[in-house]
Amino acid sequence: MPDPASRGLSRRQLLLGGAAAGAGAAAAIGADAVARVVAAPAATPAEVLHGDAVVPFHGRHQAALAVTPQAHATLVALDLLDATDADGLRRMLRILSDDAARLTSGEAALADSEPELALVPARLTVTIGVGPRLVARAGKEVPAWLAPLPAFAIDRLEDAWSGGDLLLEVAADDPLTIAHAQRMLLKGSRSFAAVRWVQSGFRRSRGAERQGTTMRNLFGQVDGTVNPQPGTADFDRLVWIREGWLAGGTSLVVRRIRMDLDRWDRLDRPGREQSVGRTLANGAPLTGSWERDEPDFAALTPIGFPVIPEFSHLRRARSDDTSQRFHRRAFNYDEAPTAGSVSESGMIFTAVQADPLAQFVPIQQRLSDLDLLNEWTTPIGSAVFAILPGCEPGGFVGETLLA
Amino acid sequence: MPDPASRGLSRRQLLLGGAAAGAGAAAAIGADAVARVVAAPAATPAEVLHGDAVVPFHGRHQAALAVTPQAHATLVALDLLDATDADGLRRMLRILSDDAARLTSGEAALADSEPELALVPARLTVTIGVGPRLVARAGKEVPAWLAPLPAFAIDRLEDAWSGGDLLLEVAADDPLTIAHAQRMLLKGSRSFAAVRWVQSGFRRSRGAERQGTTMRNLFGQVDGTVNPQPGTADFDRLVWIREGWLAGGTSLVVRRIRMDLDRWDRLDRPGREQSVGRTLANGAPLTGSWERDEPDFAALTPIGFPVIPEFSHLRRARSDDTSQRFHRRAFNYDEAPTAGSVSESGMIFTAVQADPLAQFVPIQQRLSDLDLLNEWTTPIGSAVFAILPGCEPGGFVGETLLA
Repeated sequence: MPDPASRGLSRRQLLLGGAAAGAGAAAAIGADAVARVVAAPAATPAEVLHGDAVVPFHGRHQAALAVTPQAHATLVALDLLDATDADGLRRMLRILSDDAARLTSGEAALADSEPELALVPARLTVTIGVGPRLVARAGKEVPAWLAPLPAFAIDRLEDAWSGGDLLLEVAADDPLTIAHAQRMLLKGSRSFAAVRWVQSGFRRSRGAERQGTTMRNLFGQVDGTVNPQPGTADFDRLVWIREGWLAGGTSLVVRRIRMDLDRWDRLDRPGREQSVGRTLANGAPLTGSWERDEPDFAALTPIGFPVIPEFSHLRRARSDDTSQRFHRRAFNYDEAPTAGSVSESGMIFTAVQADPLAQFVPIQQRLSDLDLLNEWTTPIGSAVFAILPGCEPGGFVGETLLA
Repeated sequence: MPDPASRGLSRRQLLLGGAAAGAGAAAAIGADAVARVVAAPAATPAEVLHGDAVVPFHGRHQAALAVTPQAHATLVALDLLDATDADGLRRMLRILSDDAARLTSGEAALADSEPELALVPARLTVTIGVGPRLVARAGKEVPAWLAPLPAFAIDRLEDAWSGGDLLLEVAADDPLTIAHAQRMLLKGSRSFAAVRWVQSGFRRSRGAERQGTTMRNLFGQVDGTVNPQPGTADFDRLVWIREGWLAGGTSLVVRRIRMDLDRWDRLDRPGREQSVGRTLANGAPLTGSWERDEPDFAALTPIGFPVIPEFSHLRRARSDDTSQRFHRRAFNYDEAPTAGSVSESGMIFTAVQADPLAQFVPIQQRLSDLDLLNEWTTPIGSAVFAILPGCEPGGFVGETLLA
C-alpha cells in the first residue's frame, strides 16, 4: 500500500540540514538510503522520528484511505443540534476542514489552546462523513444507501454504538496526537453538534512489525488478507463515487463487532482453523501454504469433504459476483471488562465502497445466513456515513454538499 | 534512562542471520552501527522492529522500573475471592510469574490460546503489586504505609478507581501486546481474584519523538522534568526497600487525576505558565531558559513578586527536605466524553518510593494545601500497593511474601 508519509523528508529533518536529514530518513526508506547516508558526511545523524510523518490533507479524495492504516483510530459520531441549519453546517465544516488541514500538517489549530501538542502529526488523518439527517438539512437528496443497513439476523445492535449525523474519524500513529486533534475538532464543532458515541481502536504500533504485515485480530487470526489496495484501478472502481455532489467521495459502513474470547477459548486449534478457513500460524488458506495463496474451494479431503468448509468465514465472505467487494479497515478494541468477565473485546470493522447496498450488504447477508464465526462474534453497533469528497487549499470538505 | 531493550539483537534479528541482524539493529543503536552495517554484505537488510525488544523479567527487582516508560500501560486492580487462601495465593503468583516471564520474552503463555499474539513483546513488562488484604491473607504483617492514603482536602475519590488487593501493571510499546498479555494474566488469575478496576493510559508512541523527551500531559505541559532516574544511587536510595520480605521491592501509589480541559481553556498562556511555574514552550522554569535549568525561587520581578509564584505547582511540589522525593511515572488517559462535554481526560499518576508516608504524603499534603493547578485538577482515584521483589528463573514473584 503506498505510503506518502515515508517518502519525503519531514519538516524537522529538513531543519536539521541535509546530511542529518538523510540519516533521519534512512530507516524509513530502506537499504539504498542507508548506503547514501553513510557516503554523506553525516556528523549528527537524526533519529528516525515517525512522529514527523505528514499525510497531506488536501486533494480530490479525503486522505485517510490512501495510506496504510495507522496504529490508532478514534471514530466519533455526533448528532446535530436542532439549531444547526445549512448556514451552520457550512460554518462547522469550514472550521473542521481548517482545523484538520492544520493539525494533519503538524501545525496548531487556529484556536489551539495547547499548540505544543500539535507538533507531532504522526500520519494524522481526519476523515469527515455525514449521515442522512445532515444531508437532508443541507437541502440535498439523500442517497438510497445512506440509511441504516437492513436488519440482519445476527445483529444485536445497541443505540450506544449506532447511527449519527456526522462522523469524524481521527487516526494517527500516536495516541496523544489523536487525543489532542479529537479535542480540537470537538471544540470546533460543539456549537453545532453533540457527541453521540466514541469508538477507539488499535492495530500494531508503527514500527513494531514489518510494514505490510496483515493485522491480527484478538482471536489471533490474520485478518484482512484479501483487500483491494489504494493506488490500484480495482480499488478506484470499487470505492469512489463518480457522479453528483459526492463525486470523489465514498461511503463508510461502521460495524462494532463484539468478540467472545471466553467462548472462543473453548474451541481447539483445528476447530478455529475450520471456522476461518485459514491456518492460524500464517493465515494461509487451508488449501495453501502462504497467506496470499488463492484458496481452492473445490479441493476435497480424502473422505470427500471440502478442505475449506462451506461454513467457513473465508468461503462465505467470498461472492462469485466480483462486484460484491469493498475495501476493509479494521481496528481492535479492548475495553475494561465488566463484572465477572476478564475481557470486553472486539473489532471496529469499517467497509468502504461506492454503494453499500450493492457491495457490502450482499456479503453481510451471506455471512448473516451462514458463517461459523457467528458463533463467537456479535454485531453490536452499525452506522452508515457518506464520506465527503476532498477539497483543495482554500476550500472545505463539504463544499459540494452545500453548493 | 538506561534501556536494555535497544542494546542487544532480538530473536527475530538473530534468525535473519548476522548481516541482516546488524542492519536491523542499526537505527536502534545509532550512527556507528550504520557504518558497520553497510560495510558488511547486507543483502537483505531487516527493518528496525521495536516490537522485538525484550525487557528481561527476572532479577532482584521487578523489571518495569528500570526502563524508560513504555508508550502504553494498563493498570488492573483485582479483589481476592473469599476462597483464596495462602496456598491459593502461592498458586496464583506462580502462574502469574510464569506467564509474565514467557510473555515478556515474546513467548506464548503456558495456556496461551492465541500464541501468535505473543510474538511481539515490544518491551512488555508485567509488574505485580499487592494490597493490604492480600498481605494479611498471606500471614505477613502489613506495613503501616500499605493502607489508603490519608484523606486530602482536594480528593473526590470514587470507588471505581480506588483500592484493590492485587495490581497487575501491564506496559508495552504496542497496544495489541498489552491486550493479549492482560487477557492471559486475567485468565490465569480468574480462579483467585476478580477485576476491580482497569485504567489504561498512554504517552507518545515509540519512535514518534526523540528518546529522552519529557512527556507532555493533556494540558500541554512538559510534565516530570525533575525525576530521580533508574540506574542512579539517588534512585536506589529513594525507591528500594532494604529489609524484610519486601527487600528489593518498593511501593506504588496510583492516583487518577481528572483534568478539566474546558476550564483550563479559559486560562490564558501567562496564567497557565504562572500556575505551573514553567514556560509552556519548552518547560523551562520561569527563571530559566531550558527545561533542566534549576529554578531560582528567590528571583523577584521588578515590582518585587517572586518570578516563580509561591502558589505554582513547581514551587509547591518542591520540599526543602530532600528525602521527600519519589520516582514518578505518569500516563495520559482520554476516555469517551459524557453527555454534553467534549472530553473526559486526565492522568494516571504513579509514584514509586520506599515509604509513601515519608516520601509521597508530605508532598501531596503540600499540594493539597496550596497549588494553583488544583483549580483544574481533581484526584478521583487512589490506591497504594506493595511492589514485590523480583525473582530469579525457577522462582516466582511473591516467594518472600509466602515464605
